[in-house]
Amino acid sequence: MIKHFTKDEILESDSFFRRNLINCLSGYKSLNLIGTKSSEGISNLAPFSQVFHIGASPPLVGILFRPHTVQRDTLENILEAGYFTMNQVTPSFYKEAHWTSARWDGSEFEKTGLEAEFLNKFFAPYVKNSPLKLGCSLVETQTLKVNQTVLVIGSIDHIYVEEKGLRTDGSLDLNVLETVTVSGLDEYHIGKKLARLSYAKPDREVEEV
Amino acid sequence: MIKHFTKDEILESDSFFRRNLINCLSGYKSLNLIGTKSSEGISNLAPFSQVFHIGASPPLVGILFRPHTVQRDTLENILEAGYFTMNQVTPSFYKEAHWTSARWDGSEFEKTGLEAEFLNKFFAPYVKNSPLKLGCSLVETQTLKVNQTVLVIGSIDHIYVEEKGLRTDGSLDLNVLETVTVSGLDEYHIGKKLARLSYAKPDREVEEV
Repeated sequence: MIKHFTKDEILESDSFFRRNLINCLSGYKSLNLIGTKSSEGISNLAPFSQVFHIGASPPLVGILFRPHTVQRDTLENILEAGYFTMNQVTPSFYKEAHWTSARWDGSEFEKTGLEAEFLNKFFAPYVKNSPLKLGCSLVETQTLKVNQTVLVIGSIDHIYVEEKGLRTDGSLDLNVLETVTVSGLDEYHIGKKLARLSYAKPDREVEEV
Repeated sequence: MIKHFTKDEILESDSFFRRNLINCLSGYKSLNLIGTKSSEGISNLAPFSQVFHIGASPPLVGILFRPHTVQRDTLENILEAGYFTMNQVTPSFYKEAHWTSARWDGSEFEKTGLEAEFLNKFFAPYVKNSPLKLGCSLVETQTLKVNQTVLVIGSIDHIYVEEKGLRTDGSLDLNVLETVTVSGLDEYHIGKKLARLSYAKPDREVEEV
């Protein structure tokens, strides 16, 4: 059975129901803890699921920030300092990662027990236990006219990845790295590989490679 | 062992290696087939992994389009007609979904065997077998200065979801819907739930709910 919602039905539905439903529609999302540091030297850590590939050459990453959220510290620190880290999450610390979204006073590292790590004199803190960490610098921001959402674009200046998950062709085995994916606002999953598929051409069916 | 790449090392690496690596850094991505129709009446279908939540009230979705790709038909049809559909993919047709990315002449529906479906007089075609389908209308586009990537923002006007995956609180059980997630350019996975976690507060550890 298929359930159909029109836009009017969505707008008239309970706000809690609507928020859950709409946040689930984009499907599985990546999960990163973004690490920043304020000018007072306070480290900050917050979970983000709105991260995406912008370009490979030069390597660029994009993050969408809601107009006003508890994670506003992260955006302010990025705009102020110009540096941030992105740290993928594993099952061994996804609960602590979720907990960083609470309204803490002071550093989320100290409060949740996640260990900060400073690498190669980079300004912003990494999450020590993360198997895939990026050190990024701010390139530009753009505000979406439609609802004041802020798109931050960062240059990927450093990549740290556990070698067991790095294939010779440059691709990453996320199943081996055990990175976590999130759906909606609060549901966490690991991935289970179906297959890699051959480059698609009209003259032959795609194959597992 | 941790492998470290600096930005210079990334830029100097083989272009195939770099493209694979950078495309994997954002982690698991959602997979949608976007359905459109040209003014000549030709249906088009193409896979996209750069889809994200923009807002719940009103319900908005965002899609990032690369400046010049084989999927350019999709962007042109959206700009011309103002309507598109988004269709989540399952293991039963993820190979056909991948195959739609080939450079076909004519409609990808006919060529790959995926069945088109027109619902409630909506202009653009849906994928019949998809368990989660959205009917969207164009709200605005924004071009990123940094590399001419185009961000399309759509209003979610219709939601069709298989009832077995819709919970009473509005959230979707993606494991039950069996939606597929993609990593890098060509690797497909299903999700396996770890847990849903309670709303994060400073005064208590998060719990499974």
